Amino acid sequence: MNGPGPVFLDESDIIARIAGTVPGSGSGLSLGVGDDAAVFTPPPGEQVVVAVDTLVAGTHFDPRLSPDAIGHRALAVNLSDLAAMGATPRWCLLSLSLEQADGEWLEGFASGLSALANDYGVALIGGDTVRGPLSISITAIGYLPAGSALMRTGAQPGDALFVTGALGAAGHAWRELAAGAACDSSLAGFDALARPQPRVVPGQALRQLATAAIDLSDGLRVDLERLLDASGLAARVDVAQLPLDEALVSACGAARALELALDGGDDYELLFTLPDAAAGQLDGLSRSWPCKVTRIGVCENGQGVHWTQQGQAYSPPRREYRHF
Amino acid sequence: MNGPGPVFLDESDIIARIAGTVPGSGSGLSLGVGDDAAVFTPPPGEQVVVAVDTLVAGTHFDPRLSPDAIGHRALAVNLSDLAAMGATPRWCLLSLSLEQADGEWLEGFASGLSALANDYGVALIGGDTVRGPLSISITAIGYLPAGSALMRTGAQPGDALFVTGALGAAGHAWRELAAGAACDSSLAGFDALARPQPRVVPGQALRQLATAAIDLSDGLRVDLERLLDASGLAARVDVAQLPLDEALVSACGAARALELALDGGDDYELLFTLPDAAAGQLDGLSRSWPCKVTRIGVCENGQGVHWTQQGQAYSPPRREYRHF
Repeated sequence: MNGPGPVFLDESDIIARIAGTVPGSGSGLSLGVGDDAAVFTPPPGEQVVVAVDTLVAGTHFDPRLSPDAIGHRALAVNLSDLAAMGATPRWCLLSLSLEQADGEWLEGFASGLSALANDYGVALIGGDTVRGPLSISITAIGYLPAGSALMRTGAQPGDALFVTGALGAAGHAWRELAAGAACDSSLAGFDALARPQPRVVPGQALRQLATAAIDLSDGLRVDLERLLDASGLAARVDVAQLPLDEALVSACGAARALELALDGGDDYELLFTLPDAAAGQLDGLSRSWPCKVTRIGVCENGQGVHWTQQGQAYSPPRREYRHF
Repeated sequence: MNGPGPVFLDESDIIARIAGTVPGSGSGLSLGVGDDAAVFTPPPGEQVVVAVDTLVAGTHFDPRLSPDAIGHRALAVNLSDLAAMGATPRWCLLSLSLEQADGEWLEGFASGLSALANDYGVALIGGDTVRGPLSISITAIGYLPAGSALMRTGAQPGDALFVTGALGAAGHAWRELAAGAACDSSLAGFDALARPQPRVVPGQALRQLATAAIDLSDGLRVDLERLLDASGLAARVDVAQLPLDEALVSACGAARALELALDGGDDYELLFTLPDAAAGQLDGLSRSWPCKVTRIGVCENGQGVHWTQQGQAYSPPRREYRHF
């Protein structure tokens, strides 16, 4: 067990210092950082949505990433979970495990977390700091009108399958970094990996339209299977329609880019379903989104995914597992 | 970064398996484990109270502890935070970092977490499992009637200071384990360290009576200073009144027991203040509590703590720091 450290740091000071840079709007907050717990009041008629994700250095991010990018990424993956429910993010709590308290690192981390939090009006209302191997656990809390959550279970036979953004780039960068590539934006996909953009605005808009949604954290193939299993359906997906990241195709060719789009992971895009009849409405809605949206297939009765490529059956390569 | 593991484990399976043993009451829950986030509806007129605490193996618990005790302790320290607010705990989320997935360990862990959760009607509604050094981060969520939170800030000059239970035992066991003692209940204070009992019932009752409260995680001295700083007050405390753990006094003598009551940490008792006129009411209320309650001093105008021992000034020994 650890002995006394060279410098005493009050846990609450670190979280309070970071919280000072992540003020949010505060509306509905009775008590933030500085007591035993935080207290807030959801607006009438709203439900509370909560998700937690932990990022361990070496497993979920390269420790060579800038502290700013680590702060951004830790919050982004949690906001992505709320986005997949259609929720409006409001609060977060941060549990930070550090080998040592390094003021410069903490400043960078706070700045990355803060910039993204401020983009979405999220306030940091609690947390703790512990001494241990570098890892970051964030609890993200949001609201949505009662009964309007986008779940994985609602897809219907005949619904079209859509995905936001482009796929594969982050998974490529992850693998290159693991193999020792230089950790900077000269690497194809580096920005997608270091600074994923949670699809909060699309998620909120989709509450009106989509029948089911999930965020792509482990790769299209795995996450599509999760959505289909939850809805009790099969799907037919044309891999020629998958929105491959253009820089990725330039860097490693279309065939490898397709593999990474299927199994790369870390895309943090939304995969969702909606009735074909609503596709026109989606067209209108998505014009104001910060990302494109692509139709990739259709849901069917049955189980599993029927992959095709230009009308022919397509067999995805053997899946690469990365972590739990 | 980690390569592929020998056995693929779906993250959601581990949390879902543990959640199956921690069902709670489910009332107000729209969506638990198995989607991107959990969704719940607080009762009308209630506020939401949320706290997060992370326990790192080697820093916050001895990895030799039984998985059952680790599961209990991880939830207990979080419920203690809610208790200090006077909240009724309802939900928890679990982020579990494991070197490897060991079925027997997970079963023991789930059983310890579950037993305590069921005592308080807490359901496990979300979380994630990651590969990394053993650590456990729990987000605990509860409710309380709007405006009734017990905060650290409300103490008034003249208020009496009380503490629940007995102090010092857990801090003793922690130090003995760190020095290599056998990790079992033959050690004085072992049960207090391994299975702290969160003071949920006293906390709820105190909402009606107390002016301020805090839970004792870092030791009476540090946590008393936190409460006083928050309330802008000083206090006079007679160390002869401190409720020392009896087994601790037998094991290491009254003088060392007193030091541990001041600075040992890990007591997870409640420290609270109330007007002297309400002491009679406290007497009645506390008869049904699972712990005693002891008056240890009084709040005053000013700053800092005036320690006395049988009428003489008392100087606590130099403080021992343990972790952040």
